[in-house]
Amino acid sequence: MANPSPGYSIQLRAEAAVRGTATSEIVAAITETGALVHGLTVDDTGHERLILDLNVYTSGVAHAERVAQAVAAIAGVAVLESADRVFALHEGGKLSVEPTAPLLDRDDLSRAYTPGVARVCLDIAANPDNAKRYTVKGNTVAVVTDGSAVLGLGNIGAAASLPVMEGKAVLFKQFAGVDAWPVALDTQDTEEIISIVKALAPVYGGINLEDIAAPRCFEIERRLREELDIPVFHDDQHGTAIVTLAALANALKLTGKSIGDVKIVISGVGAAGNAIIQLLQAEGAQHIVAAGRSGIIHMGETYADAHRQWIAENTNPEGRIGTLADALVGADVFIGVSAPNLLGEVELASMASDAIVFAMANPDPEVDPTVAARYAAVVATGRSDFPNQINNVLAFPGLFRGLLDAQASDITTEMLVGAARAIASCVSDDELNAQYIIPSAFDENVARAVASSVAEAARAAEGALVP
Amino acid sequence: MANPSPGYSIQLRAEAAVRGTATSEIVAAITETGALVHGLTVDDTGHERLILDLNVYTSGVAHAERVAQAVAAIAGVAVLESADRVFALHEGGKLSVEPTAPLLDRDDLSRAYTPGVARVCLDIAANPDNAKRYTVKGNTVAVVTDGSAVLGLGNIGAAASLPVMEGKAVLFKQFAGVDAWPVALDTQDTEEIISIVKALAPVYGGINLEDIAAPRCFEIERRLREELDIPVFHDDQHGTAIVTLAALANALKLTGKSIGDVKIVISGVGAAGNAIIQLLQAEGAQHIVAAGRSGIIHMGETYADAHRQWIAENTNPEGRIGTLADALVGADVFIGVSAPNLLGEVELASMASDAIVFAMANPDPEVDPTVAARYAAVVATGRSDFPNQINNVLAFPGLFRGLLDAQASDITTEMLVGAARAIASCVSDDELNAQYIIPSAFDENVARAVASSVAEAARAAEGALVP
Repeated sequence: MANPSPGYSIQLRAEAAVRGTATSEIVAAITETGALVHGLTVDDTGHERLILDLNVYTSGVAHAERVAQAVAAIAGVAVLESADRVFALHEGGKLSVEPTAPLLDRDDLSRAYTPGVARVCLDIAANPDNAKRYTVKGNTVAVVTDGSAVLGLGNIGAAASLPVMEGKAVLFKQFAGVDAWPVALDTQDTEEIISIVKALAPVYGGINLEDIAAPRCFEIERRLREELDIPVFHDDQHGTAIVTLAALANALKLTGKSIGDVKIVISGVGAAGNAIIQLLQAEGAQHIVAAGRSGIIHMGETYADAHRQWIAENTNPEGRIGTLADALVGADVFIGVSAPNLLGEVELASMASDAIVFAMANPDPEVDPTVAARYAAVVATGRSDFPNQINNVLAFPGLFRGLLDAQASDITTEMLVGAARAIASCVSDDELNAQYIIPSAFDENVARAVASSVAEAARAAEGALVP
Repeated sequence: MANPSPGYSIQLRAEAAVRGTATSEIVAAITETGALVHGLTVDDTGHERLILDLNVYTSGVAHAERVAQAVAAIAGVAVLESADRVFALHEGGKLSVEPTAPLLDRDDLSRAYTPGVARVCLDIAANPDNAKRYTVKGNTVAVVTDGSAVLGLGNIGAAASLPVMEGKAVLFKQFAGVDAWPVALDTQDTEEIISIVKALAPVYGGINLEDIAAPRCFEIERRLREELDIPVFHDDQHGTAIVTLAALANALKLTGKSIGDVKIVISGVGAAGNAIIQLLQAEGAQHIVAAGRSGIIHMGETYADAHRQWIAENTNPEGRIGTLADALVGADVFIGVSAPNLLGEVELASMASDAIVFAMANPDPEVDPTVAARYAAVVATGRSDFPNQINNVLAFPGLFRGLLDAQASDITTEMLVGAARAIASCVSDDELNAQYIIPSAFDENVARAVASSVAEAARAAEGALVP
């Protein structure tokens, strides 16, 4: 059975006859089902009855029902309500559009709307750059998806993807003060997506592409970068690559190895795999071997897919062939952005000493991290319930904060590398250990460090254009 | 010279030597230029100097400069700052995207984002209607424009239209708690606009079309109403029509006339004129004559434009021909949504007794309202500096509040008529007079009354579909 988690937590409201053991009996009954009492409040107490509010982590919907039944079965105890805390939080949506200043009277109305607003319109018509100053464009990012590759859920469509895009917008605001708005498109046609995003661009200072399936995502990103004058970023590619590079830099520091020397095996050649290869190479990686479903990508074969062909031509200098297991023999680093349970103890044992294993397939990693920890010096995953979570939230809020602050029109590889170094630097040498190579998602320094590094790179790039 | 107005107000900061007359000298100097001191704060006083903050209404940018010069010319007074209050209010944009609940810890993150959010996605994939419950769709309206007919400014494009769309979103929130988001499209192609709005629809519970030029706006609205399952509303048409009908109902009550009997002349056959004709007829108007640039629309002529042709076939039963002035002879009601200064005293004098004149061209009405008041029993305009402002803000916030509350999928004529009646009802019989036929934009009862009337009509319409 899965572990109890906040993703399956319930808010349980129970009424009990007042007696010394009521609370402990309820907690015991819940715990006995395998659930976890994460919070308990005695909400309203009279002389004869007391009301208990419990936040309970369960392992699934059926388990949540068993919890409620177990509590109801206690003599003198009634379950008043058992609410799913995840759905309760989503009730009414997760975003609100708020005026930055209220309209209290006719004076305010005349300035924010007609007739005063007309002057601001004319100013922008005459000086288009002023849109960044006088409208939401200066601080707003579109979170664009077509719903085709949502989390690990696949092609669930635009409407069903919306809670993820809203969640992303919440993270943008919470971690970096960026206004972000969900743009979940009811089309999966590449050309239509491109033309829609271009038409929407007047409102936005940046575009965050999200959960769009490969290979469509590559073409959409490339074209929009060419055709728009605001930065365009596919988070599933570059966000993952940034955080992976940050974690790898610290893991290498810990194991005393250098990125130019280590043999790196990447499992998965989709959106994330491609971007990771490019970013690691930009930071000096020389020995990368990538493996897809059909084994090691190598020059001896011709690939129909341009992205696989690029990998064949730009990695695996020794021309190795074979399976993922073959690639791993003697490797220093494994980076998995592929599928669950691809590695076992034999493969782990075949790696070099002080190996680094990043098993990031979600929700189930390429190898059980507790097994991997027996063989590797450093293990990281994409999960929040193990140490060293490779989490994109470390990158995208600060990245866009920096881009907007610098009014950047494009994203360069220098910015991505700078973001990765900034994240890595948030773990000090004193703190660095095998369980802590990457800062927490709630570390407030991260977004600030990333923003400042990205803005500096953006200003340097702009400066370089000045003759 | 134009009147001083908040649309040209400045925030003036001046430093003066402490003496008894400093403040009055400054106010006198400002007033002498023709400007209006709307607010004054002594901000920071020492023993020798005092700092004054003044909110000054001027009549234009050049006038604002003269104000600052006049103050600076006073002995012992220095102008520290003279800031345009309209632009200051727009600095950074007028909207913020806020999380409805903050993410305080990993527990919150697990519910609002991965892994918990995946369950909400799957629920919506299985039950698409739940998007209204668990996402922003339930409370959010898109304010869609192509920037082709913005206020009276014309075709200024998407970027320059954005301050108006943001202002509209502010009004939606302020008056009716509706989340609204600006969708300013960088295209003016009818088919492209239609397909983009359709693709964006998963995020929105309603579409407010805004400042799109005629005749494109008719086709876009018609097609989107057919092809989408959320309500679509072109405010320049129907918002104006609702408020016009509301004002007319109260003006008729005041003059003791009935809508079925009065002779109504409408000047302007664009977006607003068309919608006004249809809504007035739905409420019982029998004798409408419409005039465009080339005079009275009548059956004797064939019109290339389908909307003019419809007017020819559905108004002017007596087959009158001639100019706007000809139409006005004996008319009870003039409704202008056309151009400045079309009427003079001769035309006004030719109207029936107890005439009603709504001169709504913006910013300059069809006839000077002070002149019109000499001949007509009731005069209204679109301006905030005269009594009886016909202002769309009375209609659209409450209308969409009602539509969203009832989860309406379409807008019916009954809803529009109901909204107009609700607005009219907010002026009680005791309050009703020739200077007060329409409630103030800041009357909190209006949006509530409109919403409740629209929601009731929507629920009745839904109910009518159940066999």
